[in-house]
Amino acid sequence: MTKADFLRARSPEAKAAREAVILAAAARLATESGVREVTVTAIADEVGMHKSAMLRYFETREDIFLRLAATAWHDWSADVRGRLEPVTPCPDVRSREWDRAAWSIASALAQSLVARPLFCDLLAHTPLNLERNVSTDIVRTFKSGAIAEVEKISAALCAITPFDTEQARAVVTTATSMAGALWQMAAPGTQLRAFYEADPELSHSIVDVEPRLTDLLSALLTGYATRATRPGREQGTPRGQE
Amino acid sequence: MTKADFLRARSPEAKAAREAVILAAAARLATESGVREVTVTAIADEVGMHKSAMLRYFETREDIFLRLAATAWHDWSADVRGRLEPVTPCPDVRSREWDRAAWSIASALAQSLVARPLFCDLLAHTPLNLERNVSTDIVRTFKSGAIAEVEKISAALCAITPFDTEQARAVVTTATSMAGALWQMAAPGTQLRAFYEADPELSHSIVDVEPRLTDLLSALLTGYATRATRPGREQGTPRGQE
Repeated sequence: MTKADFLRARSPEAKAAREAVILAAAARLATESGVREVTVTAIADEVGMHKSAMLRYFETREDIFLRLAATAWHDWSADVRGRLEPVTPCPDVRSREWDRAAWSIASALAQSLVARPLFCDLLAHTPLNLERNVSTDIVRTFKSGAIAEVEKISAALCAITPFDTEQARAVVTTATSMAGALWQMAAPGTQLRAFYEADPELSHSIVDVEPRLTDLLSALLTGYATRATRPGREQGTPRGQE
Repeated sequence: MTKADFLRARSPEAKAAREAVILAAAARLATESGVREVTVTAIADEVGMHKSAMLRYFETREDIFLRLAATAWHDWSADVRGRLEPVTPCPDVRSREWDRAAWSIASALAQSLVARPLFCDLLAHTPLNLERNVSTDIVRTFKSGAIAEVEKISAALCAITPFDTEQARAVVTTATSMAGALWQMAAPGTQLRAFYEADPELSHSIVDVEPRLTDLLSALLTGYATRATRPGREQGTPRGQE
């Protein structure tokens, strides 16, 4: 790409194309070295633009990563809903079939998250860093999009479990928050992971994200299902306070 | 405190006293404005030392916060184990008594975490930022301490539930990771929270950390207990794969 290609984009199409190039460069760098390490200058260098020119398209570094996070939410949501579709609903929580259903649902969530390391990284950075250095308009757009995807996945969960919407939402929030947290503790290729691995005292604390996440989500699913289907239980009664 | 007080501390006692003053200042600032916003310079200003003098006591800003996190792990662990002590063990997962026990355990975890906003803030920052800008010795000391506290709390959980150690550890990891994640989304007093509250579309996504955390932890406890006590279930059989 020559310098002339990066004269200011005038048409909406040219602007969108320019933005896509910038986002792709940011995604590439963040996948290589982690969201935390990627500066605006590094992204500008990667696309061969001057930093000030690039900031005509995005407010800040955080704006760029929040846009990547929005796309990642959308893609992940479609993938996980596709994986949930073939799961057979199984209302009897005390049966082995429920265990299999819970395991399938938990695996669908965990596998689709772990398959997206950049999304896992972004999930941890979003509330901590990314939503804090952009205008409220940009936070609103991002947040509304993410909420819409949580609602779609929750609806898909409600269709195959005895959960109410609140419980389904809690499962999705736990899946994404724990994927973000566990990934940070275990991101393969990081110095931190290499250091843990080398230390006999610490090596047993290394987390393998997918099995750990699958295990805890399937327990969470079983817990909510047990509650939702317990005989004589009024739905909505505060637990343990009847 | 006069400038003379901050001549370099020579004795171990003087050094420890100096460190305590620096840590207290960092904790005060981070409680006011969040870990993310506190710089080394701000801490040095707060204690009335020059930045370079302060960095004789701590390697980096991250070193300071990791030391605060270590103390917070220790304090939290003692508090939560004290709260778990009066909980009556209840082996029958299908009873109402189990629900009450699960709710008590979940409340003990959630209340003791929410009572420590600085710890919740530090929990999210630890793997993401704090463990990454300090020497390996400091990470090792911090990590060994935190692991030791997780083991103590896990042992306390095993004494009142049918869990194995792995399940108990997963409960503690979920409690601390979700407290960190939920707190970031909802930290009262932050601009982000104020913005969510003002927007009708986003206001329902605001998280009240304590009830949310109690709800999901009690479901997780019930899920693990259901699995651990299911008749005919071999302990250790991979769930859903029999």
